[in-house]
Amino acid sequence: MGLPKIVVLGAGYGGLMTVSRLQKQLNHQEAEVILVNQNPYHYATTQLHEPAAGTLDPEYVRFPIDQVVDTNKVRFIQDRVTGFDPNKKEVYLKDASEALTYDHLVFALGSNTETFGTKGVLENALQIRNLDSVRVIREHMEYQFAQYQNSEEKKDELITIVVGGAGFSGIEYVGELVDRIPKLCREFDIPRDKLRLINIEAAPTVLPGFDKELVDYAVQYLEAGGVEFKIGTPIQEVTEDGVILKGGEEIKAATVVWTCGVRGNSLLEEAGVETMRGRVKVDEYLQAPGYENLYVIGDNSLIFNDQERPYPPTAQMATQQGELMGNNLVTILRGGSPKSFKFVSKGTVASLGRGSAIGMIGNKKIVGYRASVMKRLIDLRWFYMIGGLSLAIKKAKL
Amino acid sequence: MGLPKIVVLGAGYGGLMTVSRLQKQLNHQEAEVILVNQNPYHYATTQLHEPAAGTLDPEYVRFPIDQVVDTNKVRFIQDRVTGFDPNKKEVYLKDASEALTYDHLVFALGSNTETFGTKGVLENALQIRNLDSVRVIREHMEYQFAQYQNSEEKKDELITIVVGGAGFSGIEYVGELVDRIPKLCREFDIPRDKLRLINIEAAPTVLPGFDKELVDYAVQYLEAGGVEFKIGTPIQEVTEDGVILKGGEEIKAATVVWTCGVRGNSLLEEAGVETMRGRVKVDEYLQAPGYENLYVIGDNSLIFNDQERPYPPTAQMATQQGELMGNNLVTILRGGSPKSFKFVSKGTVASLGRGSAIGMIGNKKIVGYRASVMKRLIDLRWFYMIGGLSLAIKKAKL
Repeated sequence: MGLPKIVVLGAGYGGLMTVSRLQKQLNHQEAEVILVNQNPYHYATTQLHEPAAGTLDPEYVRFPIDQVVDTNKVRFIQDRVTGFDPNKKEVYLKDASEALTYDHLVFALGSNTETFGTKGVLENALQIRNLDSVRVIREHMEYQFAQYQNSEEKKDELITIVVGGAGFSGIEYVGELVDRIPKLCREFDIPRDKLRLINIEAAPTVLPGFDKELVDYAVQYLEAGGVEFKIGTPIQEVTEDGVILKGGEEIKAATVVWTCGVRGNSLLEEAGVETMRGRVKVDEYLQAPGYENLYVIGDNSLIFNDQERPYPPTAQMATQQGELMGNNLVTILRGGSPKSFKFVSKGTVASLGRGSAIGMIGNKKIVGYRASVMKRLIDLRWFYMIGGLSLAIKKAKL
Repeated sequence: MGLPKIVVLGAGYGGLMTVSRLQKQLNHQEAEVILVNQNPYHYATTQLHEPAAGTLDPEYVRFPIDQVVDTNKVRFIQDRVTGFDPNKKEVYLKDASEALTYDHLVFALGSNTETFGTKGVLENALQIRNLDSVRVIREHMEYQFAQYQNSEEKKDELITIVVGGAGFSGIEYVGELVDRIPKLCREFDIPRDKLRLINIEAAPTVLPGFDKELVDYAVQYLEAGGVEFKIGTPIQEVTEDGVILKGGEEIKAATVVWTCGVRGNSLLEEAGVETMRGRVKVDEYLQAPGYENLYVIGDNSLIFNDQERPYPPTAQMATQQGELMGNNLVTILRGGSPKSFKFVSKGTVASLGRGSAIGMIGNKKIVGYRASVMKRLIDLRWFYMIGGLSLAIKKAKL
């Protein structure tokens, strides 16, 4: 006889936006809304490359969940999801003795790392995944620099950084490193020309899928900043000492950061849900086919464009899904018919560090400082959407 | 037929003060003065505990040598001393193909770590020795913190810090850590009560030789800041995992910093000069007995007080020695008689972090904030003595 129970897993872009729509529209009597998240805070995944390089304090990238979630209307459970059963309609949490039951489940947890079968990635490469992992990347890199300078031998591998992947994440991280490295060299008394920053990509181009002119701009800008590109060069193995490229060439590097892509969260496969590279091909209402009231949004959802090619998982996609998801759940609870999801691209901007970026807004190409200002505005837009003007102002760092 | 050649090895307190006195008094025609130092900068050893804990930017602790040395009067050689022959009157440098000859040699290089025969110290413990080594300490500690927070297991040893030695250096470092740790815990999302900071001392008291009342003040202050003291407890071995105490107790700790003392620079023994724990018992003119024109000052010199006990090696001692050394060399070159060295204690202040200190000025005990201001003034006094008001102002951080 209780209220319908909506459980949202994950307070990323998709989950938080879902909850935001729900709490705005639902009355107390209409539903019980529960948000589960491992951390008491949300972090902006799109900005993680900055604290990972050490160009931004991690605090700028996160905010407490209770700052944007109305805890009078939404119950927040800080716990780690260890599994779920879409048939029994139960969710299992690490620190809870009992299963959490639901009527509607929105699965919006984070993705996993895609290794493409490359040996040693999970064991030996660092990953830009969350705040905890990017703090490790930053500290790891600085620790190697300090050790280099403090040793007699001055081993080159200590100040060699390999970034695996020259897609969106890889390029944005490399761009930040180009900003940070001269400062790091000064801080640790290391001559800039001793340091190597190598970006390795298996695909035949940097930023596959991007406009050629923009790609050329990015490559030229980053090469001028000292980046060595190895394009069309798959990494065969990540070892304790560095990477081995296809063909056998070894690059010794104490810091290897893997940015080659993500796959769906393994909890979906473990629950028996059908997936493609871990992602669930959802229907137009963002439902996992074959299950009742199981919705999958964000990086774990697979949606195809008109050319039958999958959209890449982005914050923009997750945010739009979360918005519709929240609205649809309200409609469903009130007996109405949910709306179909249709992704509307608002453009894409990839930052190249503090002072430059490349992007496509509609059919218009933008580059340089203007593009980097646009990038900052996009980051701020999320804070504004979810936390209003006060949060956006707090996070403004133009 | 050349000018008399004075070679000063090391630009620490003693060496730099010697050169400072020489360049102020000598004319171009009187002598050739050469200063050899591994780095192009001087660092204030008495402040190293601050960058080691991360409470101070290392830049505040150093200044370029050419900022205080008049390179028109003094030839500065940036190189590493690999040995010397006091009979041949030659000094050997790492990057020079020929030996550097001298008429007068002032040996003012830094000391080595005293392990007291404890196994694993040099291999597994971090040491507060110079700017390079304290950057490693800071980065090492932060890296462990980041790894702790990023791991599922949350291994306690990653956030356990052992400081070996509760003498002057150990206590000052522990005091800085007490200041830094709450900030670090916030930065890395680590609950303060999870972290352990353990200070281990073989002697039956903290700060052996200090006034009992001051020692009690320090212990109480630091214990209130969360420090666990293990006094009268020798460390038997430093391992890769932590320390093993006498009696067999093991403390697992990813960060072990050894502050138990210093011994003379091994180059003295290697040159055949007679030493006691690596230090040379110099005569009243700071000469090494049995050699012509070989002077040893600073941490490598051994001087006894009226009770026949050796003075501890301090910056204050080195500075006074350097002052007399420079003056005496000028006197000798001009055919006069050198003066005897007599140490005059100006008091001792040990800092307990940013907000407190303990000290003895004459017979007067000082504690708390007043004492910490006194400590800052002592640090500044050195910058003033060697680099004038402009350098002191640049370094002021009261």
